Amino acid sequence: MATEEELVRAIKKLLSGEAPGVVVPIGDDAAVVEPGEHQLVITVDTLVEGVHFDPDVTQPSDLGYKAVVVNVSDVAAMGGSPRYAVISLGVPPDTRPAWVIEVYGGMREAAEDYGLALVGGDTVRASECVLTVTVLGTVAKGRAVTRSGARPGDRIVVTGALGAAAGGLRLVRGRETDTRRAVMTDWGRQLVGALDRPAARVGEGETLAQAGASSMIDVSDGLALDLSRVCEASEVGARVVLDDVPVSPLLDELASAAGVEPLDLALHGGEDYELVATLAPEAVEAASRKLLDRFGTRLTDIGEITETGFVAVGEDGAERPLEAKGWDHFG
Amino acid sequence: MATEEELVRAIKKLLSGEAPGVVVPIGDDAAVVEPGEHQLVITVDTLVEGVHFDPDVTQPSDLGYKAVVVNVSDVAAMGGSPRYAVISLGVPPDTRPAWVIEVYGGMREAAEDYGLALVGGDTVRASECVLTVTVLGTVAKGRAVTRSGARPGDRIVVTGALGAAAGGLRLVRGRETDTRRAVMTDWGRQLVGALDRPAARVGEGETLAQAGASSMIDVSDGLALDLSRVCEASEVGARVVLDDVPVSPLLDELASAAGVEPLDLALHGGEDYELVATLAPEAVEAASRKLLDRFGTRLTDIGEITETGFVAVGEDGAERPLEAKGWDHFG
Repeated sequence: MATEEELVRAIKKLLSGEAPGVVVPIGDDAAVVEPGEHQLVITVDTLVEGVHFDPDVTQPSDLGYKAVVVNVSDVAAMGGSPRYAVISLGVPPDTRPAWVIEVYGGMREAAEDYGLALVGGDTVRASECVLTVTVLGTVAKGRAVTRSGARPGDRIVVTGALGAAAGGLRLVRGRETDTRRAVMTDWGRQLVGALDRPAARVGEGETLAQAGASSMIDVSDGLALDLSRVCEASEVGARVVLDDVPVSPLLDELASAAGVEPLDLALHGGEDYELVATLAPEAVEAASRKLLDRFGTRLTDIGEITETGFVAVGEDGAERPLEAKGWDHFG
Repeated sequence: MATEEELVRAIKKLLSGEAPGVVVPIGDDAAVVEPGEHQLVITVDTLVEGVHFDPDVTQPSDLGYKAVVVNVSDVAAMGGSPRYAVISLGVPPDTRPAWVIEVYGGMREAAEDYGLALVGGDTVRASECVLTVTVLGTVAKGRAVTRSGARPGDRIVVTGALGAAAGGLRLVRGRETDTRRAVMTDWGRQLVGALDRPAARVGEGETLAQAGASSMIDVSDGLALDLSRVCEASEVGARVVLDDVPVSPLLDELASAAGVEPLDLALHGGEDYELVATLAPEAVEAASRKLLDRFGTRLTDIGEITETGFVAVGEDGAERPLEAKGWDHFG
């Protein structure tokens, strides 16, 4: 392994320190930035080898890219705009410097895609790879959308389609010959791509905030679990129409190939990084039109916020309890 | 291990989310804060089990405390004031919840000591304990003190005394009966305390910034290595008078007990979190008086910034190269 100083020099070259608002870039005791008269949105997320990714199947650049995007998604879910990121990367001492540089390269790529500056990085020795990214965003004063504002009567809306990332995970973890073959198909590659290179809905989040979203969250642990968090924080219930949940069409092929239930992945799979928001009924149509016009993103009404209860409505119109299970890192 | 949700609830109770400027505390997708019209100082540092601490000898509350303080020290070294922190804690699945809570308790204690709010936390599974803390501070516009402003003719000054933390490390790592006995003495406990509960020089850093410090850095990796970083960033040299380097008096006893050279620990030991600044010669006296009056902290003039070279002046007045070695995590 290169010395810390050599590595820091190589990483410094990779990081974009000349972005607007960056007063002191990486390389000093701390970075200095100037966000202007906004409120700041702060979020942190960690990806651990063996828990969140498998270094044998995940490309280092994808790892870096995703570590940034999952945080950008949290900023988007507040209605904010990402601005700055700081990194901490722990790697085993026998890690190839090229691998570390590729991780930073992926982070830089995500930073460029989402217009944020990587302003700090700490690389330390660890017995496994642990990548922690902190992202700072800005939001207009008083305009952050929390989880706790949903009101009975609000419609529940979701961006894009759900379940593809969980389908990708199923494929890369699958040991059967059939699923391993599926990774090589067009739809298989797209499913794995949804897992490795998720997209954060930044513009969509800002637009939903402007449209008056009363609450918002990103789907990191599955629609059911994440929506249950909104209900808990807002002290309300929810009624989800299963037929209306937008399931990724990429899952059709996987369903025939591997016998999985697409709706199950959409409800409980996680890592989609779509946004779930609550809106007054009269605001849904205009918001849908804006999302489609501006970003080509579909917004789907999947049910309503109720006083109490957490239920799914089936094809037959009957209500059943919706299980708030999903991806629990300690489960 | 408790489920993630149970742990998050316990941790939420521990974190101080009601501090001034905190708009949305921990518990949502991201925290929202309002730093006002300042520039922001951002820094991140990671402590890894087996690399930065030994869980068999380090108390979890000390670990949490120190993880916050090392970041606060980086903010201090920019002349900034710490305001907010976000945490990422990776722990093995068999970790006792009480241990995790104690780590957060130590972080809370440091947050109270330094007046900052813990606004975010992510607890994930890992195969060893990895604790990453990001601290945000504020600094008046254009007033951040970097490493790159030192000019030939400036005096080099250092706060407090150096080497105690390295002495403490020597004691806790020592396997001889003598050093193990020394841990139980009064001076031994103080040395270990300097290692486990370092102090960050926040007020001192602000005062040195106001006094016109042309550069500043905190001593995390040893005076020699950290000063060499200032010289590299500022493209200057340094001449350090060894007799003037303030060596912690606690090291006298260790020197007789374990045969270590106190000056060696002061120059190359690290983890002292004192500040090294450069000042115009005429500014030193007033800055010294202010630090003593306001904080009871001694400021010592240890040499001068030169055009080139990196040398130490010995007792005999002869110059020798000063080795820029210290604590390198990859060494």
